[in-house]
Amino acid sequence: MKQIVTFGEIMMRLSPPLNYRLEQASNLEVTYGGGDANVAASVACLGLPAAHVTCFPEHQLGRAAVQQFRRLGVDMRHTVFIPNTRMGLYFLEVGSALRASTIVYDRFDSAFAKLDPAAFNWEEILKNAQWFHWTGITAAISASAAQACREAIRVARRLGITVSADVNYRRNLWQYGQRAQDVMPELVEGCDVVVCSEGDAADLFDIKADAGTANSFASMAEKLMQRFPQIKQVTATQRETQSASHERIKGMLTDAQLGYLETAFYDIVPVVDRIGGGDAFIAGFIYGALKLENPEQALAFATAASALKHTIHGDVNLATAAEVEHIVAGNTTGRLLR
Amino acid sequence: MKQIVTFGEIMMRLSPPLNYRLEQASNLEVTYGGGDANVAASVACLGLPAAHVTCFPEHQLGRAAVQQFRRLGVDMRHTVFIPNTRMGLYFLEVGSALRASTIVYDRFDSAFAKLDPAAFNWEEILKNAQWFHWTGITAAISASAAQACREAIRVARRLGITVSADVNYRRNLWQYGQRAQDVMPELVEGCDVVVCSEGDAADLFDIKADAGTANSFASMAEKLMQRFPQIKQVTATQRETQSASHERIKGMLTDAQLGYLETAFYDIVPVVDRIGGGDAFIAGFIYGALKLENPEQALAFATAASALKHTIHGDVNLATAAEVEHIVAGNTTGRLLR
Amino acid sequence: MKQIVTFGEIMMRLSPPLNYRLEQASNLEVTYGGGDANVAASVACLGLPAAHVTCFPEHQLGRAAVQQFRRLGVDMRHTVFIPNTRMGLYFLEVGSALRASTIVYDRFDSAFAKLDPAAFNWEEILKNAQWFHWTGITAAISASAAQACREAIRVARRLGITVSADVNYRRNLWQYGQRAQDVMPELVEGCDVVVCSEGDAADLFDIKADAGTANSFASMAEKLMQRFPQIKQVTATQRETQSASHERIKGMLTDAQLGYLETAFYDIVPVVDRIGGGDAFIAGFIYGALKLENPEQALAFATAASALKHTIHGDVNLATAAEVEHIVAGNTTGRLLR
Amino acid sequence: MKQIVTFGEIMMRLSPPLNYRLEQASNLEVTYGGGDANVAASVACLGLPAAHVTCFPEHQLGRAAVQQFRRLGVDMRHTVFIPNTRMGLYFLEVGSALRASTIVYDRFDSAFAKLDPAAFNWEEILKNAQWFHWTGITAAISASAAQACREAIRVARRLGITVSADVNYRRNLWQYGQRAQDVMPELVEGCDVVVCSEGDAADLFDIKADAGTANSFASMAEKLMQRFPQIKQVTATQRETQSASHERIKGMLTDAQLGYLETAFYDIVPVVDRIGGGDAFIAGFIYGALKLENPEQALAFATAASALKHTIHGDVNLATAAEVEHIVAGNTTGRLLR
Amino acid sequence: MKQIVTFGEIMMRLSPPLNYRLEQASNLEVTYGGGDANVAASVACLGLPAAHVTCFPEHQLGRAAVQQFRRLGVDMRHTVFIPNTRMGLYFLEVGSALRASTIVYDRFDSAFAKLDPAAFNWEEILKNAQWFHWTGITAAISASAAQACREAIRVARRLGITVSADVNYRRNLWQYGQRAQDVMPELVEGCDVVVCSEGDAADLFDIKADAGTANSFASMAEKLMQRFPQIKQVTATQRETQSASHERIKGMLTDAQLGYLETAFYDIVPVVDRIGGGDAFIAGFIYGALKLENPEQALAFATAASALKHTIHGDVNLATAAEVEHIVAGNTTGRLLR
Amino acid sequence: MKQIVTFGEIMMRLSPPLNYRLEQASNLEVTYGGGDANVAASVACLGLPAAHVTCFPEHQLGRAAVQQFRRLGVDMRHTVFIPNTRMGLYFLEVGSALRASTIVYDRFDSAFAKLDPAAFNWEEILKNAQWFHWTGITAAISASAAQACREAIRVARRLGITVSADVNYRRNLWQYGQRAQDVMPELVEGCDVVVCSEGDAADLFDIKADAGTANSFASMAEKLMQRFPQIKQVTATQRETQSASHERIKGMLTDAQLGYLETAFYDIVPVVDRIGGGDAFIAGFIYGALKLENPEQALAFATAASALKHTIHGDVNLATAAEVEHIVAGNTTGRLLR
Repeated sequence: MKQIVTFGEIMMRLSPPLNYRLEQASNLEVTYGGGDANVAASVACLGLPAAHVTCFPEHQLGRAAVQQFRRLGVDMRHTVFIPNTRMGLYFLEVGSALRASTIVYDRFDSAFAKLDPAAFNWEEILKNAQWFHWTGITAAISASAAQACREAIRVARRLGITVSADVNYRRNLWQYGQRAQDVMPELVEGCDVVVCSEGDAADLFDIKADAGTANSFASMAEKLMQRFPQIKQVTATQRETQSASHERIKGMLTDAQLGYLETAFYDIVPVVDRIGGGDAFIAGFIYGALKLENPEQALAFATAASALKHTIHGDVNLATAAEVEHIVAGNTTGRLLR
Repeated sequence: MKQIVTFGEIMMRLSPPLNYRLEQASNLEVTYGGGDANVAASVACLGLPAAHVTCFPEHQLGRAAVQQFRRLGVDMRHTVFIPNTRMGLYFLEVGSALRASTIVYDRFDSAFAKLDPAAFNWEEILKNAQWFHWTGITAAISASAAQACREAIRVARRLGITVSADVNYRRNLWQYGQRAQDVMPELVEGCDVVVCSEGDAADLFDIKADAGTANSFASMAEKLMQRFPQIKQVTATQRETQSASHERIKGMLTDAQLGYLETAFYDIVPVVDRIGGGDAFIAGFIYGALKLENPEQALAFATAASALKHTIHGDVNLATAAEVEHIVAGNTTGRLLR
Repeated sequence: MKQIVTFGEIMMRLSPPLNYRLEQASNLEVTYGGGDANVAASVACLGLPAAHVTCFPEHQLGRAAVQQFRRLGVDMRHTVFIPNTRMGLYFLEVGSALRASTIVYDRFDSAFAKLDPAAFNWEEILKNAQWFHWTGITAAISASAAQACREAIRVARRLGITVSADVNYRRNLWQYGQRAQDVMPELVEGCDVVVCSEGDAADLFDIKADAGTANSFASMAEKLMQRFPQIKQVTATQRETQSASHERIKGMLTDAQLGYLETAFYDIVPVVDRIGGGDAFIAGFIYGALKLENPEQALAFATAASALKHTIHGDVNLATAAEVEHIVAGNTTGRLLR
Repeated sequence: MKQIVTFGEIMMRLSPPLNYRLEQASNLEVTYGGGDANVAASVACLGLPAAHVTCFPEHQLGRAAVQQFRRLGVDMRHTVFIPNTRMGLYFLEVGSALRASTIVYDRFDSAFAKLDPAAFNWEEILKNAQWFHWTGITAAISASAAQACREAIRVARRLGITVSADVNYRRNLWQYGQRAQDVMPELVEGCDVVVCSEGDAADLFDIKADAGTANSFASMAEKLMQRFPQIKQVTATQRETQSASHERIKGMLTDAQLGYLETAFYDIVPVVDRIGGGDAFIAGFIYGALKLENPEQALAFATAASALKHTIHGDVNLATAAEVEHIVAGNTTGRLLR
Repeated sequence: MKQIVTFGEIMMRLSPPLNYRLEQASNLEVTYGGGDANVAASVACLGLPAAHVTCFPEHQLGRAAVQQFRRLGVDMRHTVFIPNTRMGLYFLEVGSALRASTIVYDRFDSAFAKLDPAAFNWEEILKNAQWFHWTGITAAISASAAQACREAIRVARRLGITVSADVNYRRNLWQYGQRAQDVMPELVEGCDVVVCSEGDAADLFDIKADAGTANSFASMAEKLMQRFPQIKQVTATQRETQSASHERIKGMLTDAQLGYLETAFYDIVPVVDRIGGGDAFIAGFIYGALKLENPEQALAFATAASALKHTIHGDVNLATAAEVEHIVAGNTTGRLLR
Repeated sequence: MKQIVTFGEIMMRLSPPLNYRLEQASNLEVTYGGGDANVAASVACLGLPAAHVTCFPEHQLGRAAVQQFRRLGVDMRHTVFIPNTRMGLYFLEVGSALRASTIVYDRFDSAFAKLDPAAFNWEEILKNAQWFHWTGITAAISASAAQACREAIRVARRLGITVSADVNYRRNLWQYGQRAQDVMPELVEGCDVVVCSEGDAADLFDIKADAGTANSFASMAEKLMQRFPQIKQVTATQRETQSASHERIKGMLTDAQLGYLETAFYDIVPVVDRIGGGDAFIAGFIYGALKLENPEQALAFATAASALKHTIHGDVNLATAAEVEHIVAGNTTGRLLR
């Protein structure tokens, strides 16, 4: 089977144990993650071949990050090591009840931000791929990162590879002198599948759901597909956060052929780790698109995968396909499995 | 006061910290437990004299397991150490919310499975006992284990000691060439008190609750007592698992004289550790039978003990009798005790 | 800005990790706290200058306790070290669900209990203060502690400093030969703000809320202000403990001018650490009195601060003023802050 | 086989992990120990039946301490629980290289100090004993503790039980109004075996080794045996501390019949935990006296046991008799045992 | 570059933290290792392509073990998962000073022992290999494991791949009914490079070094090469264990052309982890054979790699080639590298 | 007493537990340190008033760093918080035996590097100071940092405050476009006391010790004092690193009046943490200059302080003055202090 390939920055994540505050912590838990890489790793845990393309500083931390993703089965052979650069970092303080989790980013001037687009031979990288996935964060990091992403999409298109994007607009990341509103449309128009919230559609593409429609997501999705005809599916989770310890999520999909679909809500109490919940959804959706019978099943699988992710520490959904199917089949009471 | 004596295998239990997955864990928490031994230990924590009879490999792990139960006040002097054998193990991954806890057993060919029935002098072991308890797991492990159990029940009967059993049918444990359906009836017919679910009654004894009766447990229990006239009480908990983090339990008892009794439900949110919840119930029931005024009180005590167990790490209910009585008295809001 | 000054014992707190029982713990988490000192530390975290006055044994533990409060920004320069004395301790076992948290105190004969009232030069200590806060626990510890408290209140009054008290009656602490009922009235009559529950008002001052009134707290508060005319505000939290893992709290205030005010309830699920919830409330109330516009805002701030404290490990509310305001503004769903 | 019985206080020991300083530690490792109890526990680990007699406060910490010693196989059934008392504590900071380990004691007014001598029925306790061991620390704690010790020795003598003492003079412990020099001689004169350093002999009994003799220990020991004719053996370790991480020890014995014996030095690098090294020596000596062929073998065994203790965490020597014999046989290179 | 391929069992290793005894540990550190797999992983860390061939049970533990080796860069794609089997385990207690480290094995009836030789397509596995390494432990586990090894060697020979073996005779492992003396010669005669101690040569091949020769290793090695003409190099480390915390090692090699070579001794104080020291030596030797100029350099590299391994936790030498070269170049004082 | 004031960057230090490698660590220990700040903190632990001047990013990590130094008693009120900047970091992997410790720096573009020299009012900061200390690292970070340092020295000189410097030349830090050789002389010429190695004197000032002199340090020091007549004392430690676990250090001083002095060597085995050993030396020297009788005593105190630091975790020497004096008095065998 051909690979699912993702592209983007991987950061070191440092967080106090349990619900301790950063100032209380005499040690920090370390893991590595990034929106695109999490998708590759989740897809690998689901049993599909996956590769991630990224850059790291040429020292121990880069090596450690490669090791974590290699451990999960991701093909990391395309990693570019850049001397005298730094690893992007983020510090996560996990909240509880009404206290929010907070993130302090320290990712500017990372190895990834300084990548040379010419360092990636996309023809070679994608020659054995069937799916290419990227996120809006990659485009936000630096002009060269956006450029590399642009080339990857172009090559993927030419090779007939499915392209998906999580537009994921983070306003304060865009600091290299170009506007997301100028950069993103060109990238998105090469995509077959797009994850996009109504807010991001409004901010990035000036697409607003029709007022007064019963289903504003579907309304937005249809307009997005009209604007970018290559797009066949727009999907997202709807998240109703009850507290830092209680999330409700459902999956939504507008498919060019089937129209709007949604799942029921999952209640997750308590939430173990909500970082990467969206990435788990996308990974599940890719799995479903490639292995299941129809978009409805794919959406159900993706949403169950995302729900499961909330019960797993770290950025990556470690669930197997069997475990996700177990949830899809309705086994949500967590009964002991001997 | 005379001892409560139990008989069965003790396993090493290895589990990742918190809700980590086995593949994430760089260290595993170690404790020891077994369905029968947990009863002895819980009974000892409640303040009654208890002894447990078992076999261990003759190396450090056997010594460590003895130490844990000796620590809790269980008389371990009857332990038989068998050279060149292994310790049964199980790996427990604790779930959360809709992710189930899972157990990987590694218990075949353990020291206990290889026991020599002649190694136990039941006359001597039981001469100072007032109660003997065993579980269906012991009978499932090996022919020799079942044989030792058979002899223990015989001697107990002759000495006029109360005998209780938790039938606890685990289909995939029965692998030594005999069927549970053939072995268990002979053992159960020597018992005064039996813990049995409707499913186990159907599977093991082909006893089915009457369709259409309001209370199927009572229906099953009465048929069980008819089949095995020595049995005076059939009891069990009813468990309504809401999620891996939320259990609801109530206690049920059919007494030959009093008929059917039940308690209200306890909600346990969050569940700290659900392993051993049933063993805590039995220990509480034995305590109640020996120290309280009537079966109704015993059932209330047993159910509260089981509920408390869900809030305590490890296989064993460490609650004292006073702590259980505190719950029985309705103090379930967990108000700080200074 | 002038200091908020508090006075009282700081104890070492030792607790098993997570929800382990004391007998299970091979290591204990250490922190330091005390009802008055927690107020100083919370006030400092909120950004106001704070000082705490106390005594410690002259060895490493006293040094460590000073360090913790100095770390949080509390001026500890008035600490008196007494050779050959001991540190007060308490052991906290954190419950879960229906299992209550329990505390074992080991605080008798501590350095603080043996303080010499002449060791504190209150004129000097309070010369740069605007608020003095004490608790009934200080008065309970020893005759000399009560005497030092008496002198501090007297000096504060003379210097025109606001005085607040948390009456906090702990029956079994009063063991030095005087009755709380005899000692406390004289101390309370020097206070402007008093935190007092209905139960404590009845026990200490024989003040009972009118039967049949709709709001018994307000009824008690009015009587208390009649008895002690210096008091302008009586406040408290109402705590509806659902389980060891779920608290509901609201704030109540009777103000001499505004009458009775209250907030809505906060639900805190799960509770991370409920120790110091009342101290966080008082610290928030002091902050509000000094920095916000009116008592209603102060009460809202105090109650949100107390709710937040339940999500933070340790005795002290580490929340910043901005974090408390975030809750007051209604952001209680714990949404991730990037 | 009959029991070895010991008598004395057990304290909770709290120490930072590794070589951290107390002020750095956010958690403390907990264990329990006491000079006499350590002997009982070591003897039990060596395979002999042992019992320890002590008092504890009637709360969780007393229960936890009982559990630890019960775990190691010590018969704790004679424990007296005293309500409203406290547990003696000590805080241990483990040094390294040239930085010394330090201890902060917090043991005054403990349950043991407040024991009622009448609470111990020594006839009953010792009826199944063959050896009674006590230390000078017990006599130092309180008049009632010394009195209980006196009675135990008297009963032991009458029952023909061997009595041993570790005189262990700790000047600053003696604070209850009697002088060690007045109390100890009466107690020591009932002993068969005494562990005593030259310094303690000088301080307690005004016995000074002859100046100019080649072996001052033997000189002291002979004078001690002349003064107290019941004493048949005086023994001790000689400790040449090189650094907090490197100890050298040898064993010395003057036997009434055999005269002076000594072992070669053991070098222990690194030292894992030097607390209880002397208690391990005594336990080894008792084992040797009861199980080996002659005092020379007993001394060799005792010294090897003490050396091994330095490599084991906690107060108690957990070595088995086979492990000690392995060292006695010259296997000191720590070669991997598969 | 072509792969180095190894074959053999990987066990889960469980060890208490620091120098704690098994009976003291409430948690165990988990890692995975095996004599052959450690070589593959070390070779991968040195920067060469490596693959390991093994069997695992088809459950979480097998998955976790695969992950660890994949993390280190080992190609694990040839892993065979066998349902309803168990993972081999060993428990390691790390000694200190004169206390030896000890291992409790629990590896019988593992998935690897039950492998089906037909499950491995050696033509396919080795088609991209340049070196095949196996150990005597693999041959000891079961007849089928020995058979698979035999076939692998045969195929490797035919494909012209270098074959190396660590004869590593473990007497008590050979329990499947054949004698090592009968099985090993046939396997060894297909090898180019053999790691063999004088003891193993005597036990397995009845080859004894000439009495009275200055260098008994060289004497043995020459005889071994005479017996098995395919062998071109016999190598080993000489280990002078000073204590569990202090090792001295040197490397020895008899090369068919160059004769006997040896290195100076390395002193390692303290030893962090001595497990896998021999495997690190072999990995270093393979690296040297493939990348360095001559056997002398290979031996120096191998010995430095083994010395470094003693400072690294776990079974595998994580050192990079640059780090080993740093030691070879004489930088053994551990000077801080910024 | 007046303050000792230091100026420079504080970094977050992240290191794996024990001797684990960075790639092995699932959690990292966090502390904060910097060459100058460590001096302030050590001086405060020795009992002198100390203040540190620095910049931090305006988020949780800056707050946490302030807290750590405030905890140790350092006056941090002059801290400047700069929005939208980052915290400098370093990752420390602690070696063992022949494996070196290694540091990965990630400190470029930190808040401190971006400081505005005008943000510091040195007149105000130093008005209550008696000593100002800086290091060459501060001058290396950025032009503005060097400029702020220059101004601080100028103000200190004018106020008659003693100025000391640790020239500490780190070649690869100087990256802002100016050469250390151009910047440092101007700064050093304002100093009274200078810590300088022979290597740094050669690199920075082109001062070479006379070939053939018996004491090259003294030769260099004299030349340095000739070049910069303000300098009255040149001092340093000589470090003979035996392994990552064994250091030997001695102190050296050339005093304008007394000439060359040195101490004996201290052997530190094992080394707990060698970071900050030089800073502890300087802090000890400042203490000695202000509190002891003569430079010889100051040198002895400084060297003992540095030796002790090697036994303490973290960047800062937590030793008290009494503890250092204990070592100076010759108590280097680490004998247990009760």
